[in-house]
Amino acid sequence: MNRFWSNIAREITPYVPGEQPRDKVRIKLNTNENPYPPSPGVIECLKEAANEDIRLYPDTESRAFCETVARYYGLSPRQVFPGNGSDEVLAFLFQAFFSPHNLVAFPDVTYSFYPVYANLYRIPYREIPLREDFTIDFSAYPQGLKGILFANPNAPTGIYIPPEEIECLLKSRPDTLIVVDEAYVDFGNESVVPLVNRYDNLLVVQTLSKSRSLAGMRIGLAMGHPQLIEALNRIKNSFNSYTMDRLAQAAAVRAYEDDGYYREINSKIIRERESFKKTLGEMGIPCTDSKSNFVFITLPGIKGPDALNLFREQGILVRNFAKIPRIADWLRITIGTKDDMVRVVEAIKKIVER
Amino acid sequence: MNRFWSNIAREITPYVPGEQPRDKVRIKLNTNENPYPPSPGVIECLKEAANEDIRLYPDTESRAFCETVARYYGLSPRQVFPGNGSDEVLAFLFQAFFSPHNLVAFPDVTYSFYPVYANLYRIPYREIPLREDFTIDFSAYPQGLKGILFANPNAPTGIYIPPEEIECLLKSRPDTLIVVDEAYVDFGNESVVPLVNRYDNLLVVQTLSKSRSLAGMRIGLAMGHPQLIEALNRIKNSFNSYTMDRLAQAAAVRAYEDDGYYREINSKIIRERESFKKTLGEMGIPCTDSKSNFVFITLPGIKGPDALNLFREQGILVRNFAKIPRIADWLRITIGTKDDMVRVVEAIKKIVER
Repeated sequence: MNRFWSNIAREITPYVPGEQPRDKVRIKLNTNENPYPPSPGVIECLKEAANEDIRLYPDTESRAFCETVARYYGLSPRQVFPGNGSDEVLAFLFQAFFSPHNLVAFPDVTYSFYPVYANLYRIPYREIPLREDFTIDFSAYPQGLKGILFANPNAPTGIYIPPEEIECLLKSRPDTLIVVDEAYVDFGNESVVPLVNRYDNLLVVQTLSKSRSLAGMRIGLAMGHPQLIEALNRIKNSFNSYTMDRLAQAAAVRAYEDDGYYREINSKIIRERESFKKTLGEMGIPCTDSKSNFVFITLPGIKGPDALNLFREQGILVRNFAKIPRIADWLRITIGTKDDMVRVVEAIKKIVER
Repeated sequence: MNRFWSNIAREITPYVPGEQPRDKVRIKLNTNENPYPPSPGVIECLKEAANEDIRLYPDTESRAFCETVARYYGLSPRQVFPGNGSDEVLAFLFQAFFSPHNLVAFPDVTYSFYPVYANLYRIPYREIPLREDFTIDFSAYPQGLKGILFANPNAPTGIYIPPEEIECLLKSRPDTLIVVDEAYVDFGNESVVPLVNRYDNLLVVQTLSKSRSLAGMRIGLAMGHPQLIEALNRIKNSFNSYTMDRLAQAAAVRAYEDDGYYREINSKIIRERESFKKTLGEMGIPCTDSKSNFVFITLPGIKGPDALNLFREQGILVRNFAKIPRIADWLRITIGTKDDMVRVVEAIKKIVER
């Protein structure tokens, strides 16, 4: 710290992402990346876009991308906001819709970047405890909130809420902005995107990092009422005119066009997840009913950080959230390939048999 | 606007970048892009990086890029901050170093995004008039400022201040953060980067969009004392863990390695600029002594927006800042290729001879 730091720079506690080792590790299951590569079409398209035109600025509105997403979901392009990863989209929405004078709320166990954004923009917030079984209890959320945010499926629990329950929430709180972070929705769940045509208090955030295998390209989006999208654009255009580079825009468009490929690889992930949960059940290892591309487990009698290290000793990176007491002894393990999961099961056997 | 917009979303006036037409125009000289492509090595390197690894998140710290820049300038990597374009870097620094309780200042004519950032983060600011000849008068800046920002060469005037004058400013205001935006420094000017080793109140911002022909990839950076860089990282890591994607990081490293190529293309731009200024002088067209990759001119007796349209009618896009009264009748024309500039001179002749 020095005399030039602003109060915000002094006071915030930045988010700490899962480790990105510079050297390849044997099995990297700590940041929910897709174990399968992007579609060959996406790679091809990136190679083609790597041409002399990169001397020119990108389209500031990422129109081709917004039009593609709109077609995919049956929306208008004015209902789509593009961003440099869904983290950027989330940051913008905190500034576009929330303020130091109104309270927002989210679960005590969810994407741990939400309180970081709130602190960055000095938005007061409450963390509402999940039920004992890690499900979200909307009746516990106070009235008069400016916003409610949650991931669905939730992270790191993987627990999924069906659209009907979210529609009840939207109806019962017309003046609260409901932000549904669908980072993991494509792993076998129904999206609430169609509801943006009927509820102007719904904003859906998605990412191409997980189900589209594009974590390295930083592509995220929000979908909602055109007036919500307009507010996001006002913030973005006061921050950085061009957030998505030319290559990211090209890859993003192609990723939606190659939908069949992605459905196929994500089906494989779903099958591995279900099979892994079944194995865990047979082994007596507690885990949640994850509908995501990760599984959330706890190894009885082993502290979370110790378990993390025991996995690491076997060349497997997983994730633990030691700073959140309630889940300090739980581990989030990304679903990898079939071979990866065989190794994970072997590792768990070794760890619990110690 | 609707009931969900925050006060900030309501009150800001976003920055409006120069038009990026979706179709190729005949001659695009409105956003200071480099008329020459990136080095063949950069293109090659992008094609190589477009591989299966893009399923993985990028290095959150962009270490290879910071190390490359550090070597290039003789700094430590801890003195380098990477960003998704220099616009993002500028946005972060407003939040990292300025606050609603302290005044910052910049010229009344400079990069017109500065007041936008100030409004986005509610930073009070003063716009200090340039002298009649468009030079910056540092003696007109009040004492006790939290920050002073300016582009050098300045935009859209192109006027350059030598390092000695900036060093005087750094010495005389040790408690004011001096932000020097060197977006255009590589067009024949000396950078103040070496001064970051001696002055902890200096932050230098640069971009790879102009002199490195990478506008389409969004790569910017700041250089300064490690504690300044740390504050920027705290803000960035509370906003978006991964701002530079894998391909941008790869291209950025290679762009510094291919320095010879860039020196060559930028020399061509400098030669065209000097030749164009000479021609303008012979034609009696007022222009500033730009040291950038653009020239700032005014066509006697022709309103700025009219001049803009007259150029457009001849297939040439240039830039006018009609909203700033003092320069409303001036045009900023990016230096293009030799052929482009021949066409620009022909267009000017036609316009003034009407």
